[in-house]
Amino acid sequence: MAYRLILSYRGTRYSGWQRQPNAITVQEKLEEALSRVAGERVKVVAAGRTDRGVHAAGQAVSFLPGPRLPDLPARAWVHGTNRLLPEDIRVLAAEEVEAGFHARRDARGKEYRYRLRRCAVLSPLESLFVLQVDPALDLNAMRLASEALVGRHDFSAFALSGGVPGPPVRTVERVVWHEDGESLNFLIVGNGFLRGMVRSIVGTLLEVGLGRRSADGFPALLQDSSRGEAGRTAPAHGLTLERVFY
Amino acid sequence: MAYRLILSYRGTRYSGWQRQPNAITVQEKLEEALSRVAGERVKVVAAGRTDRGVHAAGQAVSFLPGPRLPDLPARAWVHGTNRLLPEDIRVLAAEEVEAGFHARRDARGKEYRYRLRRCAVLSPLESLFVLQVDPALDLNAMRLASEALVGRHDFSAFALSGGVPGPPVRTVERVVWHEDGESLNFLIVGNGFLRGMVRSIVGTLLEVGLGRRSADGFPALLQDSSRGEAGRTAPAHGLTLERVFY
Repeated sequence: MAYRLILSYRGTRYSGWQRQPNAITVQEKLEEALSRVAGERVKVVAAGRTDRGVHAAGQAVSFLPGPRLPDLPARAWVHGTNRLLPEDIRVLAAEEVEAGFHARRDARGKEYRYRLRRCAVLSPLESLFVLQVDPALDLNAMRLASEALVGRHDFSAFALSGGVPGPPVRTVERVVWHEDGESLNFLIVGNGFLRGMVRSIVGTLLEVGLGRRSADGFPALLQDSSRGEAGRTAPAHGLTLERVFY
Repeated sequence: MAYRLILSYRGTRYSGWQRQPNAITVQEKLEEALSRVAGERVKVVAAGRTDRGVHAAGQAVSFLPGPRLPDLPARAWVHGTNRLLPEDIRVLAAEEVEAGFHARRDARGKEYRYRLRRCAVLSPLESLFVLQVDPALDLNAMRLASEALVGRHDFSAFALSGGVPGPPVRTVERVVWHEDGESLNFLIVGNGFLRGMVRSIVGTLLEVGLGRRSADGFPALLQDSSRGEAGRTAPAHGLTLERVFY
């Protein structure tokens, strides 16, 4: 029997999800805690390999415990692991899944959220999770451009190097801009995302909103375009992996 | 001409507002930054002397600059000071006020917010600002007890020692519990607050909500009661000074 965990973390002080030498990562912290609970080395797989500084509200993680702990109830992984994790990482829930379950390969889709606020000065109560943007931002132009994202496209123009090799075609199912006073939330649901894709999309849409790029030219980027044609990558701290669909 | 600043800070790593030896405080950080902008020592007065770990969304601060900078426009204090402040403190706005203005003595009232969430595990995206509470909490009982707070009362039972000397009578103008899914927000508006008063009220109301204290006994605390009769003080990180009324 394997387990699936739902994980939340503030990415602020981590070099992203994925384990790497000479850097503190979420994967390393989680594997350390799970291994202490299990009494043996545990290795995990995450649905989304979030970059440095990106947060998660509902990351999905799978692992197969070794023979020493075959029957530990799912909730024991929640409580045992949370007692050992740093305060900025928490297991929200755990459930038993089939032994062959793989959090990344089996994921049908993911939802990301990018938070922005149109204001002159951003409150420190928000600044860990929100990007401050110019109050004059033209949200209508950004909404118009965003519509082109929905569907199956080659997203090469929005991919950072160093991502997963393979075809750059992904399907975006839904894109929403929520507006609540000064606050803006960009929600995007898709079957998969290239490395840096959401932040590159947001950065490019911001150029549209600021009048530095026309909304009309946006759809042309969703073809066999190279990275240099899209806009700058928006900062990591505004981005959160909201949830993973199975 | 004096100035009034609207200040926001995450209280997480500060020993409260008020300057004190051998501790990092918000007042010290703000006075350091303002003094560098002014080119001479600036001393400030805040409307609310928030305790260690308490946040502010709209703290009000007044100061009288010295003769060397009589005509600096208000917005120069915003930009100049923010460049020198740590990232967890920001001046949101500044305006010129009469020379005799005093942020604390002239305040007509303040609004505080206490954030709670009824859940098994609290997400690290919220945990800097929100208290996790038992999902079984009886909000109706807490609402009922809260009604007794409104009006002019002796709040001694809810005061921590070390506060301002003087009569412990204050007027609470409004108390609201907002519920949104698992999230609870307690809002309280009053003409003044004793030291630790909001956190003691919330702690005592939580005892009502958890069935450890009856809602019927709550009004009796709003008389000439001593501190020992109220409940425990709720943690500082859930509390935010929202705004100050003039």
